[in-house]
Amino acid sequence: MNVEAYLGERRTLVDATLAGILRPSEGTPPRLLEAMRYAVLSGGKRVRPILALAACEAAPADERHALPFACAIELIHAYSLVHDDLPAMDDDALRRGRPTVHVQYGEALAILVGDALLTEAFRVAADGARAAGVDAERALAMIERLAVAAGAAGMVGGQVADLEAEGGRPDRATVEAIHRRKTAALISAAIDVGALAGGADGARREALADYGRALGLAFQIADDILDATAPSAVTGKREGGDAAHGKATYPAALGIDGARAAARELLGRCLAATEALGDPADPLRAIARFVVGRAC
Amino acid sequence: MNVEAYLGERRTLVDATLAGILRPSEGTPPRLLEAMRYAVLSGGKRVRPILALAACEAAPADERHALPFACAIELIHAYSLVHDDLPAMDDDALRRGRPTVHVQYGEALAILVGDALLTEAFRVAADGARAAGVDAERALAMIERLAVAAGAAGMVGGQVADLEAEGGRPDRATVEAIHRRKTAALISAAIDVGALAGGADGARREALADYGRALGLAFQIADDILDATAPSAVTGKREGGDAAHGKATYPAALGIDGARAAARELLGRCLAATEALGDPADPLRAIARFVVGRAC
Repeated sequence: MNVEAYLGERRTLVDATLAGILRPSEGTPPRLLEAMRYAVLSGGKRVRPILALAACEAAPADERHALPFACAIELIHAYSLVHDDLPAMDDDALRRGRPTVHVQYGEALAILVGDALLTEAFRVAADGARAAGVDAERALAMIERLAVAAGAAGMVGGQVADLEAEGGRPDRATVEAIHRRKTAALISAAIDVGALAGGADGARREALADYGRALGLAFQIADDILDATAPSAVTGKREGGDAAHGKATYPAALGIDGARAAARELLGRCLAATEALGDPADPLRAIARFVVGRAC
Repeated sequence: MNVEAYLGERRTLVDATLAGILRPSEGTPPRLLEAMRYAVLSGGKRVRPILALAACEAAPADERHALPFACAIELIHAYSLVHDDLPAMDDDALRRGRPTVHVQYGEALAILVGDALLTEAFRVAADGARAAGVDAERALAMIERLAVAAGAAGMVGGQVADLEAEGGRPDRATVEAIHRRKTAALISAAIDVGALAGGADGARREALADYGRALGLAFQIADDILDATAPSAVTGKREGGDAAHGKATYPAALGIDGARAAARELLGRCLAATEALGDPADPLRAIARFVVGRAC
């Protein structure tokens, strides 16, 4: 399959849905909405929501059942970027080739934009589940799954561990413990809620969960490698930003070659996990090859 | 009824439940959990969760059906205080008589504590709804209600409007538009989710919603009056903090006497709204008298 065409088509669907979610509404200050749209509708790759749609497809089911949850996940991802970039956190001025939200709108509004996007994620999940015809009991379980992945034991916990590890000498176990929460938890949750939205049975759900755990780490390793090796024009961020921050990354712990080997091993796990799922899992396999291929 | 005894008893129930929610769990960095507990378990009055319980009681139903949502609301309130106190926002060093979270733990961790508490609120709501036996369809509607009240068109939007209004000359309409979102939206949502948890029928639910809208504003007016008149030892905050920040408050717009008259008028609306609900609404009426009585 043509993975770039698939990703482009799905990105268009996600972008259009997100733009529809972030519409003017009574009570929302115009400048807040403008900054929320700036943070979200800025040409992201939409990897997480596309993975949720692809997992739903592999369930197998019509991917549109997963669309509200896919968008909720992207809103969570977008909020985390806005807060990560703040001066008190990573203090980044550039994101996707544009000024970060706090540079563009000020620090106070950037904090509130993140808060609003995180809150909106749960509104979209709860409201959209009904619209998409997802069983209410299952929708509650999916909301809980998202919150666990995004919260203190997941993404936020990983960010805390990341800040605590800054400037130290990272070993592989430390780096993996950070990234399992900071990045992999939300990617893994995207796969799981996609599978749940699609009504995947026990064996397929477990296979998809395996894929999600492996892809989550593979994605972060690939991102670390690109950060360390690609020019700023490709990443849209400051070149070698992780090294400048003394971040705990896979290249720092394993070297570039070691990190590439780890990513390729995880790609193998992604492909093995989905082998029994047949054609409906073609997009998931293609995405895994694409993600790892960018960096290896 | 003895309102102080009632509030004390309910506060004990809420505090114990919150302490149980904020337990060590795999993946949560110990310092993050410590700071989350510092932010939440610090002797707040628990007005919002107690209102949710009291509304459930007035439904009428056993108040424990509303307990998860009551705690979710308090977690949302606690996160909003942590973020409001940040240097880029209100820059407050004192809260409930103790150093604010960013003073105690640093700015980065304070941002992440707020993020984690907000996320945890939705986990508690989704997970707790099932444990409390709340119908899943209704639980989804309650989660959506909470998210709308807390988000861009509610509490966060009110905070943005509040920052935009700082230093201007506040008129009553501006102050009300700010506080309707910044404070009243979440209080009103507490009443509504309590009523929903208790299975209140249409007429009772509407009466309770009326009460919630009036009490939400009354609560903020009383808070503004106390901020302007009470010594720091009573409020636990810097004395006259609102005036020092040039905040849009009711006393600034109406004078102290005008603000007191507005609060008493809203108390009248609270009592009228709940008149037909009989004895099960006694606690709600007593709370309204207590809230307004502190400042008038």
